[in-house]
Amino acid sequence: MKLREIGEFGLIGRISSRVSDGVGVRIGIGDDAAAAEPTPGRWLLVTSDMLLEGVHFDLAYTDPFRLGRKSLAVNLSDVAAMGGEPRHFLLSLAVPPGVTVEFLDRFTEGMLELAREHGVTLIGGDTCRSPHGLVISVTLHGEQAPELVVRRSGARPGDRLFVTGTVGDSALGLELLRRGERQGWAIDRHLDPTPRVRAGVALARAGLCSAMIDVSDGLAADLGHILDGSGVGARVELDLLPLSPFFREHAPLVSPTPSILALTGGEDYELLFTVPPERSGEVAPLLAETGVAVTAIGEIIAGSGLAVVGPDGREAAVGRGGYNHFCDGQ
Amino acid sequence: MKLREIGEFGLIGRISSRVSDGVGVRIGIGDDAAAAEPTPGRWLLVTSDMLLEGVHFDLAYTDPFRLGRKSLAVNLSDVAAMGGEPRHFLLSLAVPPGVTVEFLDRFTEGMLELAREHGVTLIGGDTCRSPHGLVISVTLHGEQAPELVVRRSGARPGDRLFVTGTVGDSALGLELLRRGERQGWAIDRHLDPTPRVRAGVALARAGLCSAMIDVSDGLAADLGHILDGSGVGARVELDLLPLSPFFREHAPLVSPTPSILALTGGEDYELLFTVPPERSGEVAPLLAETGVAVTAIGEIIAGSGLAVVGPDGREAAVGRGGYNHFCDGQ
Repeated sequence: MKLREIGEFGLIGRISSRVSDGVGVRIGIGDDAAAAEPTPGRWLLVTSDMLLEGVHFDLAYTDPFRLGRKSLAVNLSDVAAMGGEPRHFLLSLAVPPGVTVEFLDRFTEGMLELAREHGVTLIGGDTCRSPHGLVISVTLHGEQAPELVVRRSGARPGDRLFVTGTVGDSALGLELLRRGERQGWAIDRHLDPTPRVRAGVALARAGLCSAMIDVSDGLAADLGHILDGSGVGARVELDLLPLSPFFREHAPLVSPTPSILALTGGEDYELLFTVPPERSGEVAPLLAETGVAVTAIGEIIAGSGLAVVGPDGREAAVGRGGYNHFCDGQ
Repeated sequence: MKLREIGEFGLIGRISSRVSDGVGVRIGIGDDAAAAEPTPGRWLLVTSDMLLEGVHFDLAYTDPFRLGRKSLAVNLSDVAAMGGEPRHFLLSLAVPPGVTVEFLDRFTEGMLELAREHGVTLIGGDTCRSPHGLVISVTLHGEQAPELVVRRSGARPGDRLFVTGTVGDSALGLELLRRGERQGWAIDRHLDPTPRVRAGVALARAGLCSAMIDVSDGLAADLGHILDGSGVGARVELDLLPLSPFFREHAPLVSPTPSILALTGGEDYELLFTVPPERSGEVAPLLAETGVAVTAIGEIIAGSGLAVVGPDGREAAVGRGGYNHFCDGQ
């Protein structure tokens, strides 16, 4: 079915009919603005990510269901990286001619499936037509007690550096997609990443982290933001980077330096965080309760910049190599 | 200067250096998410609008400064229509190749000028490149006491219908732009609309309105949302529509039926609201204090639909004729 047959208000109605009530939501989709009742004593955490066809996703690689999930996941990951509990979100969509109602239904179903998994509610947004390509903009609200919010700026020399899950899979998945593959674990990681919401909240509640960020631009680049924000340096041992069995098997086929791919590849949406040394023993047991693996990969040091220790024990300074939207591909 | 010379983080730094601290803002631009402290006992009001080059604006018609103002103004208008006090906002920008740093500086200056006028603070957002055309997505937060928030659903038969300012100017301005004109009052109204924030807040605080909306899709279309939301009808007297002197002089040159243009033309961003008859005498004195003109244009009636009374006293049912993003122009 073509979108023009149901019109803008038909599309909004189709989306809102799938949305159920949310905690604290007082006015949902359908008025000039949505209204939510904040939890007393908590800060509102808010993040926004925009995804453009041809920049952030390729409809030859992904299906609408997983695209819907990922569009929300990248925002959930940002709130998780502050230690926040996600609450509700807005979705703005610019839709090009030719996109069908069925495509948008599947997109919405995917997004709302992930929303249900995390107890978050769609409360508003905007829809319009797009002359060129699908544009998705999501704004997500979370909450947390002020004293539990984790910033990028609290890392101190001696703190241990941890990362959840495994890194490099998403970059490998994207490369495999470009080479014509359509299935496999790394591709799933790229198209349908898992935001570490429960891990982020557990870490915040335990008050363990001195700084935290999610790995979206690449581990080296995102660690750089912690180092800049905290005024410190870091030493990372390349051999300690957590790599999936799939990555160990397939990355050497696409990259002469797999560990550099793991260090700089983006979009893993794992949590990267620092913990004071005297509490670092609490990390693994805590995250085991959330079912998320965690690995110590190095430590914070005085000074600035990232030093990477290779398998031979030699240190090398490493550029960040992360994704910069305006210097890459233009 | 080209954007690639300063990169994504250069652009973010350039924007954030212009932003000053805001009331209740605890973490601004530069972390995974922003944090704000809600005012106890108030609801969070949130709205989002996306503006696409070639759909919502044409860079042949507007300059970046006014585009920046308008991108925020349309969101301020939504919060105003709930009776909310605007607080802070997020800006997501997708920028095509060829847009200069100077263009983006002027855009930001315009947006932040209007932000200062209303005491709102930029707290976050996203930036990326766009393969085709500039994309602007703004999410605005406001606040209001729950009992003062004005919805679309409270209009009752007998309520008087009011609109602020004048209507039709923006549609006239757009038509004049299409005909090659570049200056004049109606064009200013189209390119740099005035959100009626103070009027909306004053009306909410006085508890005068049973329903309110802003005129973005056109008076008839937006009134239709109130009628649908409230389960009522309305009678509007065409002769009572507030028309500017500029509109009265120039609209007949572009339209054989200027009053229909005023009834259906979009983007005036005036407030359209209903007031119980026994309190309708309070409206004009209250809004005079905010410097905003207001006109009674009809009343709410039982039933459904909009009846328009022409100069000859005859009633005609009127279609909504508002802007529907997917049925118009595709």
